[in-house]
Amino acid sequence: MSSFVLYNYFRSSTSFRARVALNIKGIEFDYKAINLLKDEQHSEEYQKLNPMQGIPTLVHDGKVIPDSAAILWYLEDIRPEPPLQPKDAYLKARMRQICEIVNSSMHPYGNLKITKALTKDYGFSEEQKNEWFHRWIGQGLTALEKVLPEIAGTYCVGDQVTMADIFLYPQIITCQRFKVDLTPYPTIMKIFANCDKNPHFKKAHFSRQIDTPEELRAKD
Amino acid sequence: MSSFVLYNYFRSSTSFRARVALNIKGIEFDYKAINLLKDEQHSEEYQKLNPMQGIPTLVHDGKVIPDSAAILWYLEDIRPEPPLQPKDAYLKARMRQICEIVNSSMHPYGNLKITKALTKDYGFSEEQKNEWFHRWIGQGLTALEKVLPEIAGTYCVGDQVTMADIFLYPQIITCQRFKVDLTPYPTIMKIFANCDKNPHFKKAHFSRQIDTPEELRAKD
Repeated sequence: MSSFVLYNYFRSSTSFRARVALNIKGIEFDYKAINLLKDEQHSEEYQKLNPMQGIPTLVHDGKVIPDSAAILWYLEDIRPEPPLQPKDAYLKARMRQICEIVNSSMHPYGNLKITKALTKDYGFSEEQKNEWFHRWIGQGLTALEKVLPEIAGTYCVGDQVTMADIFLYPQIITCQRFKVDLTPYPTIMKIFANCDKNPHFKKAHFSRQIDTPEELRAKD
Repeated sequence: MSSFVLYNYFRSSTSFRARVALNIKGIEFDYKAINLLKDEQHSEEYQKLNPMQGIPTLVHDGKVIPDSAAILWYLEDIRPEPPLQPKDAYLKARMRQICEIVNSSMHPYGNLKITKALTKDYGFSEEQKNEWFHRWIGQGLTALEKVLPEIAGTYCVGDQVTMADIFLYPQIITCQRFKVDLTPYPTIMKIFANCDKNPHFKKAHFSRQIDTPEELRAKD
């Protein structure tokens, strides 16, 4: 039997990506909590697994796979069913467009590493930090709301969960934490609501992990 | 016959990624220059193609594909030969790890959009902007120099050009522009030198494009 170990943190949106993909593929895994607030990602031991000192990292039968995108595609390669991508090459490209809007144009500007550095090392006030977050994340949301109506159904690409949903959903949770007004994005929010009802997304949610603090735990 | 049109800019590292992949696949394309310094990426016409207002965008037989990663994988899907990835699933994951260190942990912090905003809108001096660039890009270089010796040969993953080289090479050119000291990264620089000799990389180089200004043009 294969063994899977996931190094991750309940609240991290990149960790969510890996958890939900493992759930959809029906893969049981050992949950190793890395507390970002205690800087555990910078420990010498963890750096050996992940030199970028980021999360998540998946270990599959001793093979180490750092980075959420690398993990999703690795799982897709070794367990193609159920697929996390459409079959058609052009639809796949559109799916990747959505993933990349989140992955390289939104998440890098709103993650904990950067928002912490802005206030701690670059003198940003809380207000300036929020303006920064709203600016870059808002550009991404606006673009997504233009792109999605062309290809969305129940989910981002038609009626099947794909990697696009896996990238989008946790980014919207982060937006809610930063009190972004999401009413201008009805297509995004319709998809978010559908993901929210999906049992695999529920199981991967930050409120239901072993390292979720009591006050943030889901009540159901 | 298929028609390919690439909207791009000579100096952009994401544009380079698309150009070199097209070259390796042996695909001729129509070069449409989008001048970032004249904000042509924000024109109403271009926004219709790419709502993120970024470059590059590929148009293939009328199908619009924004985003460099989406373009590379689309080309890999429609023209699998020669491949831009290894066959083995685990090596593919390691390749993606390298791509993602550049794509989501280096490039977003050093691109023109951000470095311009830091000085124009957030009061950074030129010195502070350089510190910011060196900090985040340095973290990526340090991680890459740890990862690459495990899997590199002539190129990032063995002796075949893969997407990892396509992401790495233009990022190093940007580092050279920002006068990053690259001597602590001998593995990266060995691979960079090998890419530099590769005819597909040469043809895609910023110094050899139709929108390259005279003073930056290659002399050979």
